[in-house]
Amino acid sequence: MSILDTINNSADIKKIPEEQLPQLCNELRNMIIENVSRTGGHLASNLGAVELTVALHRVYDSSKDRIVFDVGHQCYAHKIITGRRDQMHTLRQFNGLSGFPKPYESADDAFIAGHASDSVAIALGMAKARSIQGENYDVVAVIGDGALTGGLAYEGLENAGVSGEPMVIVLNDNAMSISGNVGSMERVLSKARVRPEYLEFKRNYRATIGRLPKLYNFNHELKESIKRRILPSTMFDDFGLYYLGPIDGHDIRQVETALNWAKQMKVPVLLHVLTTKGKGYPYAEQSPERYHGVGPFDIETGVVDSGSTSYSSVTGYTLCEIAQKNSKVVAITAAMSDGTGLDTFSKKFPSRFFDVGIAEGCAVSMAAGMAKQGLIPVFCVYSSFFQRSYDMLLHDIALQNLHVVFCVDRCGLVGSDGETHHGLFDVSYLRTVPGITILCPSDFAELKDMIYTAVYQIDGPVAVRYPRGGEPKSYNPSDKEDQLSENASVTLVSYGNMFWEVLKAQRLLKEKGIDADLIRLKTIEPLDVSRIRESVSRTGKLIVAEETCRSGCVGEAVIARLEEKESVPCCSRLINLGDGIVTHGTVSELMDLCNIDCRSIASAAEELVHHG
Amino acid sequence: MSILDTINNSADIKKIPEEQLPQLCNELRNMIIENVSRTGGHLASNLGAVELTVALHRVYDSSKDRIVFDVGHQCYAHKIITGRRDQMHTLRQFNGLSGFPKPYESADDAFIAGHASDSVAIALGMAKARSIQGENYDVVAVIGDGALTGGLAYEGLENAGVSGEPMVIVLNDNAMSISGNVGSMERVLSKARVRPEYLEFKRNYRATIGRLPKLYNFNHELKESIKRRILPSTMFDDFGLYYLGPIDGHDIRQVETALNWAKQMKVPVLLHVLTTKGKGYPYAEQSPERYHGVGPFDIETGVVDSGSTSYSSVTGYTLCEIAQKNSKVVAITAAMSDGTGLDTFSKKFPSRFFDVGIAEGCAVSMAAGMAKQGLIPVFCVYSSFFQRSYDMLLHDIALQNLHVVFCVDRCGLVGSDGETHHGLFDVSYLRTVPGITILCPSDFAELKDMIYTAVYQIDGPVAVRYPRGGEPKSYNPSDKEDQLSENASVTLVSYGNMFWEVLKAQRLLKEKGIDADLIRLKTIEPLDVSRIRESVSRTGKLIVAEETCRSGCVGEAVIARLEEKESVPCCSRLINLGDGIVTHGTVSELMDLCNIDCRSIASAAEELVHHG
Repeated sequence: MSILDTINNSADIKKIPEEQLPQLCNELRNMIIENVSRTGGHLASNLGAVELTVALHRVYDSSKDRIVFDVGHQCYAHKIITGRRDQMHTLRQFNGLSGFPKPYESADDAFIAGHASDSVAIALGMAKARSIQGENYDVVAVIGDGALTGGLAYEGLENAGVSGEPMVIVLNDNAMSISGNVGSMERVLSKARVRPEYLEFKRNYRATIGRLPKLYNFNHELKESIKRRILPSTMFDDFGLYYLGPIDGHDIRQVETALNWAKQMKVPVLLHVLTTKGKGYPYAEQSPERYHGVGPFDIETGVVDSGSTSYSSVTGYTLCEIAQKNSKVVAITAAMSDGTGLDTFSKKFPSRFFDVGIAEGCAVSMAAGMAKQGLIPVFCVYSSFFQRSYDMLLHDIALQNLHVVFCVDRCGLVGSDGETHHGLFDVSYLRTVPGITILCPSDFAELKDMIYTAVYQIDGPVAVRYPRGGEPKSYNPSDKEDQLSENASVTLVSYGNMFWEVLKAQRLLKEKGIDADLIRLKTIEPLDVSRIRESVSRTGKLIVAEETCRSGCVGEAVIARLEEKESVPCCSRLINLGDGIVTHGTVSELMDLCNIDCRSIASAAEELVHHG
Repeated sequence: MSILDTINNSADIKKIPEEQLPQLCNELRNMIIENVSRTGGHLASNLGAVELTVALHRVYDSSKDRIVFDVGHQCYAHKIITGRRDQMHTLRQFNGLSGFPKPYESADDAFIAGHASDSVAIALGMAKARSIQGENYDVVAVIGDGALTGGLAYEGLENAGVSGEPMVIVLNDNAMSISGNVGSMERVLSKARVRPEYLEFKRNYRATIGRLPKLYNFNHELKESIKRRILPSTMFDDFGLYYLGPIDGHDIRQVETALNWAKQMKVPVLLHVLTTKGKGYPYAEQSPERYHGVGPFDIETGVVDSGSTSYSSVTGYTLCEIAQKNSKVVAITAAMSDGTGLDTFSKKFPSRFFDVGIAEGCAVSMAAGMAKQGLIPVFCVYSSFFQRSYDMLLHDIALQNLHVVFCVDRCGLVGSDGETHHGLFDVSYLRTVPGITILCPSDFAELKDMIYTAVYQIDGPVAVRYPRGGEPKSYNPSDKEDQLSENASVTLVSYGNMFWEVLKAQRLLKEKGIDADLIRLKTIEPLDVSRIRESVSRTGKLIVAEETCRSGCVGEAVIARLEEKESVPCCSRLINLGDGIVTHGTVSELMDLCNIDCRSIASAAEELVHHG
């Protein structure tokens, strides 16, 4: 029997004799590797956090203490430990476990996660709530060095430092992203810094001198001077946080000890833990980026099902082609160089490539400055993360009608990453950006054309939006032309990737003897409804099908426009994703679930024709 | 003749003999005080930046070098210096000078400003554009200590530090906001730190040793050790910025010298300048907050037209009343305690009041953590600045349907602050937040009721949105009831403050013999169109009038809903603010300009009735 079989919560972890902990960590690692090799998921980050997670559960009780994971792609060991061992094989699958923390899945998941850098602010809010309500539990934020590049993390750190609120921020530093003060010298000093004598000194100092306010103040400088010699000052100290570390994040005893100290200090503490991404699986240790978010792979050989051509790779290729000819074109990413297809660009044009970290706001403001001074910046970003840039789009870009191109990736449903990663709001929030042009390609060739158009033919802000993955496996490019018929009894409108589903719906309707006009919008903003008006004036029935949330969708705009000035009598149905909260699963499962698949569209059209 | 009469650009400033500079600064101050006493505007911040601005123009040429002001409420001296002296009396007035930098007003204004913390990222983008295009000009960001609390500023600093790009970031520190390392001890050390010998040492060191890469590396530690002794390390050094300062920002010679050094260094430099808000006008020096954004005042006595009761003050009063009875209610502001009416709350309930700095994202994430653990947080925020929180609203609040109350102030047109400060997007972006309830009071009594409703009767996220200023001077509360008539030939729909304009329109129509149904929405999300449907089924004509941008407005949603399921034949006009870019002026001037005033609404209705 494995040790893991005896573990169902934090209390069980605490019972394990110290000498058996390495074995427990091995078992956790094996379970993670085996499951992810079959289901896909986040491998490297989860393997790096195994000892840290075990140590957290030895020091805290996740059923009452609140452990807030940043981004959440390091929560697999936590899920296994907290009673979800037997469901790990359902990871990221429809009706299965989510790949991210979800309070609806378990009370041990303190908060949802998915987007970066929010954990410190959230944990601070929780700690404040605890103190204000006179309750008794601990709050811990677990944040990676990557997420620390986001401004929201700094806002959280500033406020946590000033608050004096007892809480622990674990900086899980795998040295993949952070620059500056967390350099190699710091690592060498690691062990020296967690000297028990120093902590002892501090505790005694506070306990005795601390009770005499005047003396404490008087001696503050002395203390600071001692501190500076023992514990080199860092940015975190400047923020008013108590900095501990760095320590070896794969040495459970060290992490457990440090966490216990941090917990006992009853002030805001930043515990700096060094880990290795992919730890324990050699392929992932060597190429952690390749095994960050990964599809199914062969455990023995490490071979991952290699991705086929995607919208992202077409974007990357097209931008290289353009940059080759036009020296004013620069590319920007917010820590998603690989995911957005910019890897080749970054190597071919290093001086014109900018990775700003997980800082989508900075990317947009920086692009604004570049555009103002004559460059043509292209920011490649996931729809869901682009939400962070909303104010900068309005304020820094739109007010001056600056020409910046946004390649908006992962629009619509993204599949197994679920709620936090679907791109279901960009249509609505981008439509509000003054002067923006929004282009929606339906295949690779059109994506390429539209990026050229965006760079060369359009002024002001331009977004080209496309889904995760690739174009339909087999299709006829000529299908993309509008299909209008004298006998049509309903007008079907769509754009982008959703067009292919609507095309299938049109064919299903045809089988039932219903002719439908098919109109594909290439541009959803500015919106030209003339073709729709012409068709609807014949059919009197309109369906607008979109892979986006309802509020502010294109369908609302189309109908409002049709009813304005020269009103067209029409009965309509909007097909979309409602409030925009959709679980995880394959895209096809989710389309069925949400009734935006071709059969649902066809039924809606049929009902409209017969009863509308 | 005054010195100022000879100044029309940076070149003119450079010609002024050093000994006449204090006189020039006096003249600038007097002009600012005299104008602002008549027009209102930002007084304290502008007075604090006079010497700094003169020094900037002595070192740089704003017609080609790019000086990026953060927030922009310190640009008056810059405007006077760059040829706009004679228009200063038109400040913040319709067709007059803007109170913020505007490139459309002058090429000496490098970039728009209004929202905080973006200047470093923008300046970095500009500096990169300069280098990539092989051009030759300098880039300077001027950022206050307040704006430094925003995460976007940190993202900019991180990237500027890593970039190595020659640029200067002037930290204009008036000690109003910043905490932590910029404490009082730093000030004492001020002069010691700008020791010419040290700078000389650095220049020589780089010039000689710097040419020998190996030796440079070998000696790096030595240099760092010397540096640590001469120039105490700061957070900015950690970021890779070259820190200079702090220096006295009212000593022009010192500032000019330091700027010249910073300019010559050809690396990213942070120059820390200490200034006094309100400098030179005793009343403003003593109460800089009171004279930050100020209405007309009496120069001799300093007496400001005291504000009457406003939606903000009603919010503050109501929250105090609720907090008195309910210990779970806490209030949050992002550096707008006074503006949002929370000053009294902050004094009465200090342990339940949180000012997070200019960090709207952090405010929302922190509120999410608080709500998850049982508090009822209320975040009071201006509509325009709330745009920064968009992702956190979707991700941290909505996905878990957390009960957080948002008191959204300054919705709609705000008047003299113009483009960057109007609240014309919140209707559209808040409507997309899953599960949100949006309440729109039309007077103080209703605002109070709705805050109670939001706190006690609604689950999930709730926004109560209201305009800047107060309710109409004289009105009859019973006018707010729906007014429906059998003979109505048009349906007028509106909500919030705009209702009063529509009511006037209805009366104008009555004078012309046109009966109009009047429907006021108290809740715009979720949207109940049943009353509108009933009215429109009689009138067949619909006007939805809103003080918001068009894309995603309530009118679009209303029409789409009317045409769905049981379609209602209707011809409509949406009256709103189009793309959402509106200049400065009085609210009434701007309503006329944008054709959303009562006369325009009445004409649109009349045309619809007769020709629609």
